[in-house]
Amino acid sequence: MNPAVVPTLVAACRRQPVERVPIWLMRQAGRYLPEYRELRSRYGMLDILGSAELAARVTLQPLRRFDFDGAIIFADILPPLIGIGLELSFGNGTSPRIHNPIRTAREVAALRASDPRHDLAPTMDALRMVRAELPPRVALIGFSGAPFTLATYAIEGGTSRQFTLTKRMMFEQPAAWHALMERLTRLVTDYLIAQAEAGAQVLQVFDSWAGVLSTDDYRAHVLPFLRQVCVDLQPAGVPLIYFSTGTGTMLETLADLPCDVLSVDWRVDLAAARRLLPARMAIQGNLEPALLFAPAELLEARARTVLRAGAAASGYIFNLGHGILPQTPPEAVARLVDLVHGYRPAAAGNAPQAASR
Amino acid sequence: MNPAVVPTLVAACRRQPVERVPIWLMRQAGRYLPEYRELRSRYGMLDILGSAELAARVTLQPLRRFDFDGAIIFADILPPLIGIGLELSFGNGTSPRIHNPIRTAREVAALRASDPRHDLAPTMDALRMVRAELPPRVALIGFSGAPFTLATYAIEGGTSRQFTLTKRMMFEQPAAWHALMERLTRLVTDYLIAQAEAGAQVLQVFDSWAGVLSTDDYRAHVLPFLRQVCVDLQPAGVPLIYFSTGTGTMLETLADLPCDVLSVDWRVDLAAARRLLPARMAIQGNLEPALLFAPAELLEARARTVLRAGAAASGYIFNLGHGILPQTPPEAVARLVDLVHGYRPAAAGNAPQAASR
Repeated sequence: MNPAVVPTLVAACRRQPVERVPIWLMRQAGRYLPEYRELRSRYGMLDILGSAELAARVTLQPLRRFDFDGAIIFADILPPLIGIGLELSFGNGTSPRIHNPIRTAREVAALRASDPRHDLAPTMDALRMVRAELPPRVALIGFSGAPFTLATYAIEGGTSRQFTLTKRMMFEQPAAWHALMERLTRLVTDYLIAQAEAGAQVLQVFDSWAGVLSTDDYRAHVLPFLRQVCVDLQPAGVPLIYFSTGTGTMLETLADLPCDVLSVDWRVDLAAARRLLPARMAIQGNLEPALLFAPAELLEARARTVLRAGAAASGYIFNLGHGILPQTPPEAVARLVDLVHGYRPAAAGNAPQAASR
Repeated sequence: MNPAVVPTLVAACRRQPVERVPIWLMRQAGRYLPEYRELRSRYGMLDILGSAELAARVTLQPLRRFDFDGAIIFADILPPLIGIGLELSFGNGTSPRIHNPIRTAREVAALRASDPRHDLAPTMDALRMVRAELPPRVALIGFSGAPFTLATYAIEGGTSRQFTLTKRMMFEQPAAWHALMERLTRLVTDYLIAQAEAGAQVLQVFDSWAGVLSTDDYRAHVLPFLRQVCVDLQPAGVPLIYFSTGTGTMLETLADLPCDVLSVDWRVDLAAARRLLPARMAIQGNLEPALLFAPAELLEARARTVLRAGAAASGYIFNLGHGILPQTPPEAVARLVDLVHGYRPAAAGNAPQAASR
């Protein structure tokens, strides 16, 4: 591995000039790939996550098919919760469940200490194995759930539609909420630093459910913890992407986050995001994932619309607005990667530029 | 009933001056009320909806406790789909299911004609019974699901997280999508006109899932049908409220709708909504429903914030950003109604005015 090569994805996170727009897709390793479904028919989710060799193999599956600029380590946001004492199971085709959800200050206080380096050793080993396999131009991406999104699972015991228990703890038991968020903030930070040490060159924090909160509640009960994660990660020297969905009405609040990249969903107008976000922030996103089912002309037209707005300035990473959907045809992914790589981005500081073909 | 009395809620929908800010809550008749749970323990959902007497009784339950300015007819958005040929069941505590979902152009073409006056006669009778009971100052509210939200249920067969099947039909089978939306647009319009004729003085269209779409897709595949509903309803002379959630990034698009009131969720900044929406549109909303679990001081502080922004101009209706949550304490609802009624709204055209206490 040549340390002089800066992967395109890392350069874009830092808003440095790039030769082409980097692309990777959330859940690019997963159920839409036949080779993943084959492996998954033989192993449970926790088996794969518990085996560095299997996790590394799954991570690399999409890279054998597509010219992605990043490989995201195959992991899940929930297993770090096992280390602090939560009992987690993944059903077959059902949502994951936590069997001892946290609802009281006493239950928060009883959470165990966790060392993610040790408790999530297979993930750390998988990162090292994948890094050794990847060509230097492909960035290795580590990730974690955000404190808020982890808190929703810890409190609700799974996913939710209304997140009533989460909001109730926030409103009714502010001290318990604060203690839980502090605990999760430490866990997330330790986990991300461990991943950077194991070879992750980009880190993404997934705050999938942040959009269920009003801006006032997000500012009061979520943002301070997230800011702490960003600040504590800075010494690691690895760019940090903050991903959330349904947060298009709070971009001005997210602009305060000391992260490198903001990943926005398909409800956000990318040009508006450019105007509202500070120049120091790169942007990732934001194609509607279901467009990968659309006829080729429609997919291409809409991907070009995203590219024109996103790549109008430096610091842009092409991605979907959320994870790739399970039934997505792999051919559509190949078409999308070609299209993005064929697009000529505007150089840093240059005026927006039309597609080259 | 004195025909000269214009209910406060109707006046606010028309942006006329009002003595006090009108308030009603989505799902104000429902599971948070012990008297509803008692009735529900004896009757299934379709039994209540099929009995004008029971539906009227449930509609009036919250009015016996709280000084609401509106009574929304107890009904559900899905039963109108039975009339066009869909098989619907409500499980106990589970989400409703449609057993013959619509996935192809052929299935769309096979949908039956429906006359909501006849097919939903118990709801029409319930409207007449409630209107006869209500004091003239309380507005009777009728409602329907919006074509898009009804389409998601018809296609997915229930609720969904990703709405992949819905989006796939939109992208992959545009002709089938168009035909289905036209069919549902006619159904919604007929149903709402029938409710107006049966005594509804305000009509609300619920587009609960509109926020899963990008602005481009909403404009192309949803807005034209919704606009048709609004236009076709105008001769009925009854104000129309359009409710959606997760649509805070497309207020400028919603501003094009020829409806009287836009109901926005708790992710929307009401002051920003005032700036973005045309002067002809009244606004409804948008307290975070979970705040009804919060300590009294927090609930009051946040309700006042909503009131200050909402009631800064005429044409404002207090409501939650979405339906009242099942475990909500009725005492909190009483407190909220008192607070809203104690607030002095700015008169039409006046400058914003601080709370009077």
